[in-house]
Amino acid sequence: MAKLQFTLQHTDSLSKARAGHIVTDHGEIPTPIFMPVGTVGSVKAVSQQQLKEEINAAIILGNTYHLYLRPGTEVLQKAGGLHRFKGWDRPILTDSGGYQVFSLAGTRKITEEGVLFQSHIDGSRHLFTPESVMDIQRAIGADIIMAFDECPPYPSDYKYAEKSMHLTHRWLDRCFTRFNETPDKYGYTQNLFPIVQGSTYTDLRKASCEYIASKDATGNAIGGLSVGEPDNMLYDLCGLCCDNLPVHKPRYLMGVGTPWNILECIALGVDMFDCVMPTRNGRNAMLFTSEGVINIDNKKWENDFSPIDAGINCHISNHYSKAYLRHLVKSKEILGLTIASVHNLAFYLWLVREARKHIIEGDFVSWKNQMVPRLQTRL
Amino acid sequence: MAKLQFTLQHTDSLSKARAGHIVTDHGEIPTPIFMPVGTVGSVKAVSQQQLKEEINAAIILGNTYHLYLRPGTEVLQKAGGLHRFKGWDRPILTDSGGYQVFSLAGTRKITEEGVLFQSHIDGSRHLFTPESVMDIQRAIGADIIMAFDECPPYPSDYKYAEKSMHLTHRWLDRCFTRFNETPDKYGYTQNLFPIVQGSTYTDLRKASCEYIASKDATGNAIGGLSVGEPDNMLYDLCGLCCDNLPVHKPRYLMGVGTPWNILECIALGVDMFDCVMPTRNGRNAMLFTSEGVINIDNKKWENDFSPIDAGINCHISNHYSKAYLRHLVKSKEILGLTIASVHNLAFYLWLVREARKHIIEGDFVSWKNQMVPRLQTRL
Ligand SMILES: [Zn+2]
Ligand SMILES: [Zn+2]
Repeated sequence: MAKLQFTLQHTDSLSKARAGHIVTDHGEIPTPIFMPVGTVGSVKAVSQQQLKEEINAAIILGNTYHLYLRPGTEVLQKAGGLHRFKGWDRPILTDSGGYQVFSLAGTRKITEEGVLFQSHIDGSRHLFTPESVMDIQRAIGADIIMAFDECPPYPSDYKYAEKSMHLTHRWLDRCFTRFNETPDKYGYTQNLFPIVQGSTYTDLRKASCEYIASKDATGNAIGGLSVGEPDNMLYDLCGLCCDNLPVHKPRYLMGVGTPWNILECIALGVDMFDCVMPTRNGRNAMLFTSEGVINIDNKKWENDFSPIDAGINCHISNHYSKAYLRHLVKSKEILGLTIASVHNLAFYLWLVREARKHIIEGDFVSWKNQMVPRLQTRL
Repeated sequence: MAKLQFTLQHTDSLSKARAGHIVTDHGEIPTPIFMPVGTVGSVKAVSQQQLKEEINAAIILGNTYHLYLRPGTEVLQKAGGLHRFKGWDRPILTDSGGYQVFSLAGTRKITEEGVLFQSHIDGSRHLFTPESVMDIQRAIGADIIMAFDECPPYPSDYKYAEKSMHLTHRWLDRCFTRFNETPDKYGYTQNLFPIVQGSTYTDLRKASCEYIASKDATGNAIGGLSVGEPDNMLYDLCGLCCDNLPVHKPRYLMGVGTPWNILECIALGVDMFDCVMPTRNGRNAMLFTSEGVINIDNKKWENDFSPIDAGINCHISNHYSKAYLRHLVKSKEILGLTIASVHNLAFYLWLVREARKHIIEGDFVSWKNQMVPRLQTRL
């Protein structure tokens, strides 16, 4: 059992895009990669079989906040970790729960020690500290564990952003101390990724990158983006972070984003992505396809018996027609939520595989420039 | 393209159970068979891939009432029928819509002509007649079309039951007239099954069987049971109908029932079953398994990491643990509805396949007598 390894296979000459692969004890991950989000131990409306066979997801996410509350670490430990609990034998990454507890707004309190919050389920009070969050993620059994950070809202004033960044850095030290003094829980190697913060301020972002890089972790994450700022600002800050993070470590841009966001950020040097958008939007009748965006609720699809998306290699996207999916959505059939979610995820995975192929073939930028407007077309 | 063919392969010597097979233009159906119910064009929470690969359903049901309202016959005809619309290439049976419109209670009116009813979706007024219901089912494209009948409530007085039965018989004549003067819609052969009524009165049931049998249809159905009567009455009336219906035609008992109901009625000579119970109960956390009944919501499953049901040959039932499914159900995850529904249907299909095997092997009765109490055990 070995630490996460990252190999760069090809770096694009016209952009900063990279093709690589990550090796973990639960298997290989080609990069760039998109990671479906499995909030409460399930990627919403999608089965593990569909994740493998229809979507071919190489790695999925779990949410520490949700899993800590339900089923709880005790059940997960008795099960032998989340992989065995949910029947998933490929890699899992868990977030730190920080983003979720900060989103609880009125009901949480941040101190040097950590964050005091109330469960959204029963109102019970809990404390997350850098130490407890390491222990919880160890118990969940994630292959990749995220540091406990504070994600400041957009916009934040400079003073708040700076104070928050330093808190994140002090918490990071505590995360690494705890992580290094605790063993891997289930035999395979667990890895800790630190997270760059610094809000929208370039000097803070640079300082944070430098601090994060000094930890010499097996991978690094960029946090605090896609929180409401305009796309150009997202790209500028993402590019700045990529330029200031180590080349030979995977770079994970957290919580981003639309298909075109992902292509632009691949061009800036990002290797890993996650976002709830494909599943959440899918459940709200919005489909991303290789030809553009579809509101499947629309009357115009009533008699369109063409496949949902013939342009991608997913059986479900090829098998069912737009008219059938629209019918399921109008009839509020659960299968409609599943088909839309599976399709959108299959599309995201298809997109990053295509990006990877074009990086290796050397025509990534021209392909990307063609795709970005096409993917945004409202069909 | 040929009419439905039914071949009896083996008849049990200790009971009236039969093993046979039905051949339709969309493929073969081993009997006894259970048919999952796909109300609005989807078996609730289950994909067509899962119906084939996990459940191995040989035939599924569609509901005429629901499909007529949404997506409507116009869309279905443009699609080339329900098979193509939903991406399902095995046989489909549609009910006549009668049962559904009678269930609308206050909002419908029965006359000699047919039934006037209001849509549950938008309150619009519609008329179902024996003729229109044949046309609708032709347009849906079912392999097996059901006659338009009146299903009297339980209990009904003798006078009402008799009057209702005669109405059903007059409607049946009109169904056959219309059916015989209209061509198969999509190239393959469509078959019309008449339905025995007569409520709980043995003389009416016998008279109805005789009338139904005189139509020399490719198969015959028993309606008006499992509407609230006790199980013993269900078995008595079902046995009486089986004894009075042709031997060399498949017998379809509509809307029945629990796993033990199905085994008892197989012993009486029934070949085909349908019921919403496996999917509806599954969505309400009730699982049928080869060891008995499980309320998966129960705290006792919290740390039970054994498979949902290792006793049946369904990947989903073997792959996921009781603890994981309980977690999904407690967390109201959509995947929980899917796993429970797939499992329950896979169990029903496993059960009828086992019954068939034991009929052929000659030990059906002793197997059934062992299974009936076991399947009812509360775990
Ligand atoms: Zn997002
Ligand atoms: Zn039923």
